[in-house]
Amino acid sequence: MAESTKYLLNEDQIPKNWYNIAGDLPAPPPPPINQATGQPVGPDDLAPLFAMEMIMQEMSAEREIPIPEPVREAYKIWRPTPLVRAHRLEKVLDTPAKIYYKNESVSPAGSHKPNTAVAQAHYFKEEGTTKLTTETGAGQWGTALAFAGKLFGLEVEAYQVRVSFETKPYRRMFMEAYGATCYPSPSRRTNHGRALLDADPDDPGNLATAVAEAIEMAMSTPGTKYALGSLLNCVCIHQTVVGQESMLQLEMADDYPDVVIGCVGGGSNWAGMVYPFLGENIRNGKNTRIVAVESATCPSLTRGVYAYDYPDSAHFVPLIKMHTLGSSFKTPKMHAGGLRYHGMGPMCSYLYDHGYVEAQARQQVECLEAALVFAHAEGTLPAPESSHAVKVAIEEALRCKEEGKSETILFNLSGHGYLDLTAYQDLAAGVLEDVHFSDEDFAATMADLPQVAAE
Amino acid sequence: MAESTKYLLNEDQIPKNWYNIAGDLPAPPPPPINQATGQPVGPDDLAPLFAMEMIMQEMSAEREIPIPEPVREAYKIWRPTPLVRAHRLEKVLDTPAKIYYKNESVSPAGSHKPNTAVAQAHYFKEEGTTKLTTETGAGQWGTALAFAGKLFGLEVEAYQVRVSFETKPYRRMFMEAYGATCYPSPSRRTNHGRALLDADPDDPGNLATAVAEAIEMAMSTPGTKYALGSLLNCVCIHQTVVGQESMLQLEMADDYPDVVIGCVGGGSNWAGMVYPFLGENIRNGKNTRIVAVESATCPSLTRGVYAYDYPDSAHFVPLIKMHTLGSSFKTPKMHAGGLRYHGMGPMCSYLYDHGYVEAQARQQVECLEAALVFAHAEGTLPAPESSHAVKVAIEEALRCKEEGKSETILFNLSGHGYLDLTAYQDLAAGVLEDVHFSDEDFAATMADLPQVAAE
Repeated sequence: MAESTKYLLNEDQIPKNWYNIAGDLPAPPPPPINQATGQPVGPDDLAPLFAMEMIMQEMSAEREIPIPEPVREAYKIWRPTPLVRAHRLEKVLDTPAKIYYKNESVSPAGSHKPNTAVAQAHYFKEEGTTKLTTETGAGQWGTALAFAGKLFGLEVEAYQVRVSFETKPYRRMFMEAYGATCYPSPSRRTNHGRALLDADPDDPGNLATAVAEAIEMAMSTPGTKYALGSLLNCVCIHQTVVGQESMLQLEMADDYPDVVIGCVGGGSNWAGMVYPFLGENIRNGKNTRIVAVESATCPSLTRGVYAYDYPDSAHFVPLIKMHTLGSSFKTPKMHAGGLRYHGMGPMCSYLYDHGYVEAQARQQVECLEAALVFAHAEGTLPAPESSHAVKVAIEEALRCKEEGKSETILFNLSGHGYLDLTAYQDLAAGVLEDVHFSDEDFAATMADLPQVAAE
Repeated sequence: MAESTKYLLNEDQIPKNWYNIAGDLPAPPPPPINQATGQPVGPDDLAPLFAMEMIMQEMSAEREIPIPEPVREAYKIWRPTPLVRAHRLEKVLDTPAKIYYKNESVSPAGSHKPNTAVAQAHYFKEEGTTKLTTETGAGQWGTALAFAGKLFGLEVEAYQVRVSFETKPYRRMFMEAYGATCYPSPSRRTNHGRALLDADPDDPGNLATAVAEAIEMAMSTPGTKYALGSLLNCVCIHQTVVGQESMLQLEMADDYPDVVIGCVGGGSNWAGMVYPFLGENIRNGKNTRIVAVESATCPSLTRGVYAYDYPDSAHFVPLIKMHTLGSSFKTPKMHAGGLRYHGMGPMCSYLYDHGYVEAQARQQVECLEAALVFAHAEGTLPAPESSHAVKVAIEEALRCKEEGKSETILFNLSGHGYLDLTAYQDLAAGVLEDVHFSDEDFAATMADLPQVAAE
């Protein structure tokens, strides 16, 4: 273990620009479409919900987007994050591969989510917004936005998927400790929520419903807009500090990755890590494999279709072209709440559909088991979401062992699992079950795709 | 904010030696005393429980004690930890003071406790021990030892104060995720526990009981010894990486503290932070104020007596001279479980009694309120224990404001509060109550002090 374990950067080395993969693509992905007109949406269509700076980033083809100084100042609270050489894990696996992980779990909210939360809070504040609504599943995003809202002086109201709200109360308490309010979704605070609860008082909720409620509240409350934690290009752009820092840190180690791995729900932590490396592939002829790992319980990339679909269950917002299982898909119970969305971010979907990146789906039992192997060797207990990246990183390291190759594997440890300990308890108790879908399981929700999808 | 926010060290800068304050004192503190003989104990008296290396450290007057290389390697998992300049907190308080905090919450177990846990696990492993028992209150220590046990290949069995076991299940799950087993104390696994439960089936437990049970199990199980998370000199010695790193980091900032603050239960995080600075006071004529902050709910320094007392409720181990409320003292319900012990570490007690350091007691409501002020400015949510240090750091900064002084304040953020969120929920709900003792409240337990105390 003569080589370093942690590669640290100074605050001056926090990137000054975000990286936008759109600037390195030959053509842009298909645009969002207005449901009423069937036409691509313009900035004005999105302005009631989002900050104009974010809308411009969403549509930008500039490769570099400057990070505002107040956002870089906020980043200094926890960034740059460590890049860690997983010496101990390598030893346990007895692999010739070199495994590195970027530890995004060290942020105050415990995940990569604050990278975009503080950016969004800054832009909204600049534009005079006083309150933000948002959705959250397991609660990583809601916590991050609550933290960012408090930093920048914005009120935050989060709609949390009811099943998570009820089974993981610590995340709600965490949001409240940062001064946010949190409601279970569906709630009786919105027309959409009331309609769902009237139909089924026990509706456990899902992310598409929570998105719809947050949007309805934003649209109906003065001074209020809507913050989204994944999916959008601009959100992924904000996350690229992760990959840019990792590249610098690997330079310190005189190394470069053969494969880069991240878990995907909407795709933002994965995008933030892999886009800068994908840019190198495109611009400079590098050949790094880029792997997205989704949950087999919600397999939008590997089992869904690439089509225009509704991002929210109330059909408030423009259609986006994405890999999707259909907006009415009811995800079975799972611990990785952040991977529990019927669709995948439009850019991630586009890159996968065009062969730029690989995708794999993994079951929650094997992922949590891999996470324990990691925790016992490296200390940090991964979030259930991040365990999907851990699982495939370990598989790649074992492949290298079989093949006698000393490849360099890099993955994003997007968050810690300290507020998800019930997942590990369920694993130990043997009460977790894997889910095996047949194609028929998706037939009903796929039939709900909007007509434009046929084009 | 032109100045740095975080001061980071390289792995090479992890101290190569621990610092032992005994090497800088004119005389050693009073030794532990054998209950049967009334004589000072020797190493052999302690050998059935502890590793011989630790016993020698406990009695050492060497100023520097080398850190074994496997322990330094384990430290690299999370050390060196950041020293953070709390620019945002200073701004909120509008103080001319400079506030720095050492962020020990970034360890895998979430606190400073692994600093000694990995050292103890190493020494026990070297001596052929296969299993460790221990006590834990809120669970910070149990988690740290579970982590360290897994790293060094030792089985860990933790006895957790029943009231914490039942009300804070995440800590138990965390220990179990690291492969440890955890029992509520009093348990029916020991003679001592069975006797207590026979007398009162609802006995909520306390640390002195959990210590006794862990010791009884260690003494009665082959290959098994006992690990302790605070109190002992050797434990405090292991923690001095905290203060040594802080001193180096303040040098980077071209600064030196006027006041250093830590919370105290048994005293180990405080000792680890303050001893190196106290050494500078003694050897080099520095005048840093050293402040220990205890809980007003368990005020052994400010309300107890300095006397020989029983460290455990079963009277298994030698008497130690400490500030104590009496070993049968029943601490009222409180969230800072790590500050819930009837006595204070013998060295900390000695230093306070001899005027080297100051002590203050604070109520839990004011401490948790201060912790929220900190979290809203700096991001990290402090552990209820650490909130006591935060509270007094803020008071000192406000004093500097009143006096127009630009003093440098340093405190130890010993752990995060992500697994203690129920404390913040109780604060928000207004159900936390402060405790105001009269001297009579201590009379009964003080009467239980062993006779040697009269000498």
